[in-house]
Amino acid sequence: MKALRFENNHLKLAEISEPNFETEAVVRVLMSGICNTDLEIVKGYASFSGTIGHEFVGVVEEATGASELIGKRVVGEINAGCGSCQLCAKGDSRHCLRRTVLGIVGRDGAHAEFLTLPTRNLLEVPEEIFDSQAVFVEPLAAAFGITEQVEIFPKTRLAVIGDGKLGNLCAQTMALKSQNVFLVGKHREKLDLVKERNVETVLLENALKLNNNFDVVVEASGSESGFELALDLLKPRGKLVLKSTFQGAAKWSASRVVVDEITVVGSRCGRFAPALELLKNKQIDVENLISEQFDLGRGVEALNRAGQKGVMKVLLSMTN
Amino acid sequence: MKALRFENNHLKLAEISEPNFETEAVVRVLMSGICNTDLEIVKGYASFSGTIGHEFVGVVEEATGASELIGKRVVGEINAGCGSCQLCAKGDSRHCLRRTVLGIVGRDGAHAEFLTLPTRNLLEVPEEIFDSQAVFVEPLAAAFGITEQVEIFPKTRLAVIGDGKLGNLCAQTMALKSQNVFLVGKHREKLDLVKERNVETVLLENALKLNNNFDVVVEASGSESGFELALDLLKPRGKLVLKSTFQGAAKWSASRVVVDEITVVGSRCGRFAPALELLKNKQIDVENLISEQFDLGRGVEALNRAGQKGVMKVLLSMTN
Repeated sequence: MKALRFENNHLKLAEISEPNFETEAVVRVLMSGICNTDLEIVKGYASFSGTIGHEFVGVVEEATGASELIGKRVVGEINAGCGSCQLCAKGDSRHCLRRTVLGIVGRDGAHAEFLTLPTRNLLEVPEEIFDSQAVFVEPLAAAFGITEQVEIFPKTRLAVIGDGKLGNLCAQTMALKSQNVFLVGKHREKLDLVKERNVETVLLENALKLNNNFDVVVEASGSESGFELALDLLKPRGKLVLKSTFQGAAKWSASRVVVDEITVVGSRCGRFAPALELLKNKQIDVENLISEQFDLGRGVEALNRAGQKGVMKVLLSMTN
Repeated sequence: MKALRFENNHLKLAEISEPNFETEAVVRVLMSGICNTDLEIVKGYASFSGTIGHEFVGVVEEATGASELIGKRVVGEINAGCGSCQLCAKGDSRHCLRRTVLGIVGRDGAHAEFLTLPTRNLLEVPEEIFDSQAVFVEPLAAAFGITEQVEIFPKTRLAVIGDGKLGNLCAQTMALKSQNVFLVGKHREKLDLVKERNVETVLLENALKLNNNFDVVVEASGSESGFELALDLLKPRGKLVLKSTFQGAAKWSASRVVVDEITVVGSRCGRFAPALELLKNKQIDVENLISEQFDLGRGVEALNRAGQKGVMKVLLSMTN
């Protein structure tokens, strides 16, 4: 089968054998999404080697011990836990110390014709949700996952920094909880994508005109300057939610965090079930985030395209 | 009067006029303590110019409208709020945006014969507490202040990084709440100071042999490597409490904070009343932290001494 792989510091489309994994489900991938994390992996993040990609929708082909799943259209939680530690026993493998992560840690990913995952990771996609929407479940879950860690009330004054894909989804999901959500970004046309979703938009150059009285700021730009801007916007004892993962170390003003007693909350993966609900109920716009769609055969080109300025979500299709 | 001042990038003992502040209390300083923040100010931290020092015990000489305070031995909360904003109205000036801070922001400090503070900042010192103990109320309050921000339970596995004055007080105060407190530091003789206070001690070179399953790590070393070590020790979704303020920016692995969903809690000033209680009840050892005592007239020498390796608390006495 075809798979988009990063090996020996080289990105390539390869022909590899189809998975045949007796203890896991085999999923025929219909569509996958290119995430910034994929771009970071190609720069060396997470020292990953293998098939990249972790956002997908597909159809179950094999599922030993869970035959009811066969033929179902599914999305899949990307953390595959050991199944036996305390965390896994509680049904949350996201921090299992022995976990593998689809296309990120020790497990081939989704930019391929087939992938495998434990059956417990799979969730059926309601028929109301198109493939081109379902492929957003993973990043949408990550955005909505903020609410697992920080309480957001209708009056919470909240800013999201970064008008890319992740920032957009964070702003939209936060606006379901708070009436006071601002999205700060560099691009008027990207900011406009959330116009109808109860989000105020602010160009970066005007951000410092906002009062520095935000209760919560979500950093989703992945840049060091985003971190400093977040500190500028927060009120004392405010909360800074970090969403972006990137390669390398960042510089930051530790003493500002101490003096203003800021709480910095690292936030990664969310639950898939609530994200599916949001899409089913049409509470989130995702299709306007799609910039382009490529066939898997043009995967290398697609990844390069996804890294270009101004490009939002690039999808890979396996069905042509 | 004599005062230890930092002006035009120069530390000196100066003769200045005595304060005569009609709306604030005038306190004759008995003893003051040199804090690492004083050393950072002399390196440029907080861009402060004036009399430094914020840890003190003294006797009230004048107190317009609060004559009952006159002659009383007091300590004083260092943040002087505007008195009229929402925060001040709630009795907590620590984050008032218009606050001055004794010897740190816009207000002459404690390494002088006299200082002034609003009367509401002053707390009488119970007679059971010696001057050489009372002078530790400010850093002790800062250490115990962690409990205002992070819940510590008897089973909370907690490590403090840094065996200096602040780390010592953090370890002692945390050990009043948890049965599982470890102090990590470079110096066996400093670590031994907490031996009788229900704290396990670990030399830095052995710290990574500890399991990385700490619920809370308090960074009190003020070094970048302390931050990285804290991440090494924390379990996923653990809490990193930052206590140290220092000049300049630090590098840190933002993606580790995100991937492990760590919460970083900046923590600065605590309440004085509980700290006075701890000292009165002899629940904390402070006098074994004193390295040396100087007369105020030798203030410059004292500050230099405080900056030398291996030196713990240096006190200034105004009563000789």
